[in-house]
Amino acid sequence: MSNIKRLGNLVKELGADWAVLTGADSICAVTGHVVPIEIGQSPFSGGPSVVLVSRDGVAGVVCPNTDGGQQAGNYEELTYAGFANEVTDQVGHYRKAVSEMAAKLGVSGKIVYEANTFPYALQDLLPDSRTPFDHDLARLRAVKSAVEIEKMTRAAQVAAIGQAEARRLSVPGADELEVFGGIRSKMEQAAGQRIAFAGEYLTGIEHSSTLGRPIGRRTLQDGDPIICDLAPRVNGYWGDSCNGFVVGNTASEGFRALHAAAKETLELAVSELRPGLRVCDFDATLRAHMKSLGYSYPHHSGHGIGASVHEFPRLVPDETSLFEENMFIMVEPGDYLADVGGLRCETMLRVTATGSEVVAPFELTCE
Amino acid sequence: MSNIKRLGNLVKELGADWAVLTGADSICAVTGHVVPIEIGQSPFSGGPSVVLVSRDGVAGVVCPNTDGGQQAGNYEELTYAGFANEVTDQVGHYRKAVSEMAAKLGVSGKIVYEANTFPYALQDLLPDSRTPFDHDLARLRAVKSAVEIEKMTRAAQVAAIGQAEARRLSVPGADELEVFGGIRSKMEQAAGQRIAFAGEYLTGIEHSSTLGRPIGRRTLQDGDPIICDLAPRVNGYWGDSCNGFVVGNTASEGFRALHAAAKETLELAVSELRPGLRVCDFDATLRAHMKSLGYSYPHHSGHGIGASVHEFPRLVPDETSLFEENMFIMVEPGDYLADVGGLRCETMLRVTATGSEVVAPFELTCE
Repeated sequence: MSNIKRLGNLVKELGADWAVLTGADSICAVTGHVVPIEIGQSPFSGGPSVVLVSRDGVAGVVCPNTDGGQQAGNYEELTYAGFANEVTDQVGHYRKAVSEMAAKLGVSGKIVYEANTFPYALQDLLPDSRTPFDHDLARLRAVKSAVEIEKMTRAAQVAAIGQAEARRLSVPGADELEVFGGIRSKMEQAAGQRIAFAGEYLTGIEHSSTLGRPIGRRTLQDGDPIICDLAPRVNGYWGDSCNGFVVGNTASEGFRALHAAAKETLELAVSELRPGLRVCDFDATLRAHMKSLGYSYPHHSGHGIGASVHEFPRLVPDETSLFEENMFIMVEPGDYLADVGGLRCETMLRVTATGSEVVAPFELTCE
Repeated sequence: MSNIKRLGNLVKELGADWAVLTGADSICAVTGHVVPIEIGQSPFSGGPSVVLVSRDGVAGVVCPNTDGGQQAGNYEELTYAGFANEVTDQVGHYRKAVSEMAAKLGVSGKIVYEANTFPYALQDLLPDSRTPFDHDLARLRAVKSAVEIEKMTRAAQVAAIGQAEARRLSVPGADELEVFGGIRSKMEQAAGQRIAFAGEYLTGIEHSSTLGRPIGRRTLQDGDPIICDLAPRVNGYWGDSCNGFVVGNTASEGFRALHAAAKETLELAVSELRPGLRVCDFDATLRAHMKSLGYSYPHHSGHGIGASVHEFPRLVPDETSLFEENMFIMVEPGDYLADVGGLRCETMLRVTATGSEVVAPFELTCE
């Protein structure tokens, strides 16, 4: 079943008539229409692109003329003059286009909407009877369709290609931004398109063991630990991956032990993950295993991934929902040691009918 | 005067009490606080970051904990748990934080807001008396402060470094994405940070003469015309630039003539641009000059630039406002010829007290 139809069914279940999507990620997940994101909200838009979906699975997309014509799925499309060779009232054109699409499709009754992205600019244009449904939508999106599984696999493969390139380029004398640029470019060539990117490439004990530091101009030296987290967006879907390794393949004993623990815990994750397992139990299993080996991490054990780089379910101690088949899950045990360096071992797993599989394996060694 | 104070004065002029900023670009322009944009709206946010500014120039920023602590300017900051190691209601935390900041600063009376980004999630939290002021804000932002002039200059310099790198890397056998990756990486190394990027790098007669085509895997050949439009975002501010040149420096007569016309028109722009000139008259002068040389372009003659890559004033035939000192203006005459290839010559100009100056010159030759 297409995600438009699945969303229509959710709208019915919720006792509503129409869903209004305004998140770039949700729009892509439901319709396949890719909203450009890399420069933030486009200066040629009057507001976030909008998708309207009925309980019967009729869908319409409204977007600026700079993003139209993708014909990515089974929906009507209406573009408005965002870019034009004249003084342009983008918000006015946007409002008019959404009104026209709503009239054309016959939007009425009760709507459900996304609280984190619904714009005030539309508040007087759509039916007053409205309820946020972010959590229900997140649950729907967590289970991927056949089309999405293909896109997720491609994105994970691009990340894996990036991980191999990171090993090749991480040599003494290069600097972080230089190596990162080479990795990103390799992923773009593999994807055949520009990619948005999330992640980090940090070198040396101090940088690799500090969470949240930006990629900079530090020069790599022999023996440097590296944390390399690569998340490319390909055709609107995110890959993700992380490894820790050492320049010159001369890891310290401490770094080797940490890597072995993270990798072992990731292997445990692959064998434990299955439909019906509670997320918090899985999270607890992974944390306990790391602890038994003498390590811990201050963040989630992982997260769902799809048209958003982090999405439901987040692997945290109080998430009581159950894994389902065709969820895509990042698992990322690691530790950040001031005297050794930091690392995570992170791969994408697909929940299968009976267990889990690594979507796009790459070489998870530290030297 | 700081942009926070300038905005306070605008709020007074408009007879309002508080301004609410929700655009990543406006927030950066007014406060210096850089909102990350490259992956679209952060999955760890509950809505767009918010700035509140009083008529007296008191300012507060609300942002997720992943973006806080920049201390970029003279404002209060309140972060909320966007990222946390537990099930997290980002929208709830976001609403609570905005309410707290509004209460702390004493937001009341009349507010002005940005129609293109104000979120519905805040509609019940801020005073009901509200008016959009997008156009007034755009006019304020068009004239840059001393701090902004420095940031714009840096961004333009990074673009110029990219243009030089483009000449170096554009050799037979390379492909578009590969060369683009090298250019981007060079700009990131020059900037000392990751950059968001807008623009294009397209090769060959067909690709360079077709507007709106994505960068792909076409292999460069000797004699290929190239259109190279580079716009990097550095510290929240955009550079921009464009040139057309030829692989192997063997331009056809037609390409050379087009390049000379575009460059001559750009030089005319530098000598004509000055405070008090009407935008539409400037636009008409440039179009007429290109026409007198046998060329035309189907787009704007250029655009304002700053914390957004395209902003007021857009250089279009019906824009009647006047240029002012310290506006930053991109001018981009060119043409797109199916038998010759396409190009634009585009540099950043600053409107000075009496005329204009090129902000960061680069080699504008076609071979």
